[in-house]
Amino acid sequence: MKEFELIRQIQQQATPPGTGVILGIGDDAAVLEIPAGRHLVAATDTLNAGTHFPLETTPFDIGYKCLAVNLSDLASMGAVPHWALLSLSLPDADEQWVQSFIQGLMSLAKLHGVSLVGGDTTRGPMSISLTALGSVSPGLQMQRSGAIPGDLVVVSGTVGGAAYALEQLQSGDEVQEQHLLDRPEPRVALGQLLAGHANACIDVSDGLLADLSHILEASVCAAKLDLEKLPCSDALAKVGLEARYRYQLSGGDDYELLFTLPPNSLEKLVDWRRQLDIRLSVIGEIVDGSGVECIGANGQPYLIEYAGFEHFGVNG
Amino acid sequence: MKEFELIRQIQQQATPPGTGVILGIGDDAAVLEIPAGRHLVAATDTLNAGTHFPLETTPFDIGYKCLAVNLSDLASMGAVPHWALLSLSLPDADEQWVQSFIQGLMSLAKLHGVSLVGGDTTRGPMSISLTALGSVSPGLQMQRSGAIPGDLVVVSGTVGGAAYALEQLQSGDEVQEQHLLDRPEPRVALGQLLAGHANACIDVSDGLLADLSHILEASVCAAKLDLEKLPCSDALAKVGLEARYRYQLSGGDDYELLFTLPPNSLEKLVDWRRQLDIRLSVIGEIVDGSGVECIGANGQPYLIEYAGFEHFGVNG
Repeated sequence: MKEFELIRQIQQQATPPGTGVILGIGDDAAVLEIPAGRHLVAATDTLNAGTHFPLETTPFDIGYKCLAVNLSDLASMGAVPHWALLSLSLPDADEQWVQSFIQGLMSLAKLHGVSLVGGDTTRGPMSISLTALGSVSPGLQMQRSGAIPGDLVVVSGTVGGAAYALEQLQSGDEVQEQHLLDRPEPRVALGQLLAGHANACIDVSDGLLADLSHILEASVCAAKLDLEKLPCSDALAKVGLEARYRYQLSGGDDYELLFTLPPNSLEKLVDWRRQLDIRLSVIGEIVDGSGVECIGANGQPYLIEYAGFEHFGVNG
Repeated sequence: MKEFELIRQIQQQATPPGTGVILGIGDDAAVLEIPAGRHLVAATDTLNAGTHFPLETTPFDIGYKCLAVNLSDLASMGAVPHWALLSLSLPDADEQWVQSFIQGLMSLAKLHGVSLVGGDTTRGPMSISLTALGSVSPGLQMQRSGAIPGDLVVVSGTVGGAAYALEQLQSGDEVQEQHLLDRPEPRVALGQLLAGHANACIDVSDGLLADLSHILEASVCAAKLDLEKLPCSDALAKVGLEARYRYQLSGGDDYELLFTLPPNSLEKLVDWRRQLDIRLSVIGEIVDGSGVECIGANGQPYLIEYAGFEHFGVNG
């Protein structure tokens, strides 16, 4: 298949373009109209085969995931997603692979009203880079900085399940919750509810501890974590405590929102849970100082000797 | 070097952020303010080692080129560039390589007032994906469609020089004009002058014939090209006519603007040439029909048996 045919195929599956698309796929660039009075929010993330998804992942799931991880970044800012641009490097142009990949991407895009408006296809080792564009009301974006001592530390959904599923897959064991690994659900609606309420927010991609540390460094404060409160998927609940904590604290790839709220926000939390039918767990609090203190099941400090996933090197 | 340090290093070199940057590198997404009353223009292009640049290209030049090709896309729309997001996949994190790469990227970014506002770094085969964001006055963007029979076909600078330099490099010959290959000059100022005047525009990345064909297909018309008028770099001028035409018509990687103008635009062309100190060559005209007719040095039709560069497969 030729490159131009590939682009045409993508274009056909990507239509119809939605709100604000003045000019979509097919020209040298897309022309887009930001909703009046709002700021643009832009995130870009790359997925490489073997690093960001197992080699056996289906093209549908790869397509889904490359959009999901970027929508998760927009969600952590409290943004409304609008558009996506795709850069697809493939060793060869397999029509069926591309069709299934785009189906996966578009299945999630449609859920969130996102239009695929451009991109390019190149020959090379498989690498998928996606840029997601959205908008936010001026001043309402959430950031990593902003956490204040006394804040509640809250996380959505469960953590550790994706890392556990990956380890099961790599060990050749039966994988019980593969959807946590292949089809993370970006918390787009939650992010929009949180904007203007949460003092700080990030999505959990590197691992809970590593991402919490990003908040703490940017906010210049510390946190106490109650490990017993860490929300756990069904499969992970059957794992021994020590291993379970390791998956939950340093697993990564959860794409849940980790945020801090003023201590008087418990009523709002109850409302949001009901409104979104989503798990929201208070797992600790922000305190003065630096670093993270973890409290184990016995109420005693729990020593951690591992941390989040980093692409280059390991934590010291 | 760790990923977070790598990002910090990029962040340091990328500052200070320019106009409209509410939140730059360091959070999950960038927050940006589009100039009031303007539309967003977004382009994304990936460079893979060995495909889009020779393996021996310096990191400085790779950094320069990954921005240049994207600014060229914005230029072909008539947009003003503002911001860039970078996705950098590297097999390992070599501090010096990254530093030099970012220097190259920023050297061009500063020339055009572009701020690097986000991106990610991942481990994988070298692949560089960049998204360039700019703005245009509503309705003034240039497109591939819009060419009208009678229009002049015009190209900026020279064509074929980059492909000739690449072939010299690959044959082990002395390369006279390596800058045409390594440091293409995106025609940003020209694009902005053309907006509102040119009926159609594209940048020459796949090769003159292929990119002209994109205009003709989108505009549903044909073109006559006068091969004697094709602008030629100094080194390429010494090459035999047949080979020279091949480089000029199908070489690609020129990143010049190819556009069509109403026939009464010759005075404007003279003005623009003077204003920008740039070569602008009328190389043919738009006619009814389909396809491209090339006229050779003898005034007779010149048969072409090759066309532009496509990443997947070859032209039939």
